[in-house]
Amino acid sequence: MLITFEGVDLCGKTTQAEILIKRLKDLGYDVVFVREPGGTKISEMIRDILLDLRNLEMDSITELFLFSASRAQLVKEIILPALNSGKIVICDRFYDSTLAYQGYGRGIDIEKIKVINELASSGLVPDVTFLIDIPVDEIYRRKSKVIETGGVKNSTDRMESSGVEFYERVRRGYLEIAKMSERFVVIDGTMGIDEISEKIWSIVFEKLKLQVR
Amino acid sequence: MLITFEGVDLCGKTTQAEILIKRLKDLGYDVVFVREPGGTKISEMIRDILLDLRNLEMDSITELFLFSASRAQLVKEIILPALNSGKIVICDRFYDSTLAYQGYGRGIDIEKIKVINELASSGLVPDVTFLIDIPVDEIYRRKSKVIETGGVKNSTDRMESSGVEFYERVRRGYLEIAKMSERFVVIDGTMGIDEISEKIWSIVFEKLKLQVR
Repeated sequence: MLITFEGVDLCGKTTQAEILIKRLKDLGYDVVFVREPGGTKISEMIRDILLDLRNLEMDSITELFLFSASRAQLVKEIILPALNSGKIVICDRFYDSTLAYQGYGRGIDIEKIKVINELASSGLVPDVTFLIDIPVDEIYRRKSKVIETGGVKNSTDRMESSGVEFYERVRRGYLEIAKMSERFVVIDGTMGIDEISEKIWSIVFEKLKLQVR
Repeated sequence: MLITFEGVDLCGKTTQAEILIKRLKDLGYDVVFVREPGGTKISEMIRDILLDLRNLEMDSITELFLFSASRAQLVKEIILPALNSGKIVICDRFYDSTLAYQGYGRGIDIEKIKVINELASSGLVPDVTFLIDIPVDEIYRRKSKVIETGGVKNSTDRMESSGVEFYERVRRGYLEIAKMSERFVVIDGTMGIDEISEKIWSIVFEKLKLQVR
């Protein structure tokens, strides 16, 4: 089973992915957790280029191809072998991020991105995708809170130095993509952490029961 | 004017590109020479990943996206601005290399690569493409000669550690691509350097005369 978490930065998807992993592991499931971009030696080298603040001149199409390169390697080296051996794979971001950020956010042709996404993921489709949706002003509220408390997100990386309008387009993009596909579960990310994790768990648990049958 | 040089490794395209550049510069033309992958700070970072012999586990789709990322940045930062200011741009490899190597050589879907190539090059099409064609056994003859003389090609990089069949597919691919497009000039790369450079010069000179009119 392939489960992906999507949403704008600071929506809480990493926290939720981690809670889900713990629950699954407690029940004895073999779980592989991957984070994009990165997750293999080559993908991490690509991640370094993508997140390097000095690479401000990076074109949005370069960015699209680098994310896709990182993903292609992650799929072949980690995700496909894990799925083939019956493990549950949980991704913190997958190709929907590329559609939302590079397509809706940066304005690159959506149909072309779909071709690229299919190639990068070897045609894989997640069994369920949780979109944690928060309003854009909530991103900024959380950002300033993280900075106040001296959290790891303190130093803004290259990807996050985009503006409010950009995040508005990304958020609208995500909601549009979600409408077009049954595998999406849209969750209000302004709810409490426990409430969200319960909702996620009930859905995953149902899917696991169906698989056993 | 955008002029590209294509062909398998050691076909002599770099030598020919350099001769052409000298001739054009001697006539007072403003020429920009670029080599793929690379040519910008970001593209060179990508080149390092591509040519690193330790990255043997690299998937062919990752490779495709990395070449395309490097190209997208080169086009936006160097090639388009140079063409827009009236300069002649000469490329040692451009997107036909991706079709030949990753498409015909590695077996990735040709139509998908065309979508990627168009995106990576912002729709640019070369005015003329010189394909320097040599038989595959000639590549190996030249390779051993370079090694004997202690040349720079002595240490084989990751890309060049592919086999004879691979190069056969790449060569056939190039010849097929060339048949489908009028911008291609196929040149027998086993001819002498001067003979080849004269042929190239006569074609470029004709095109320049037409441009002046």
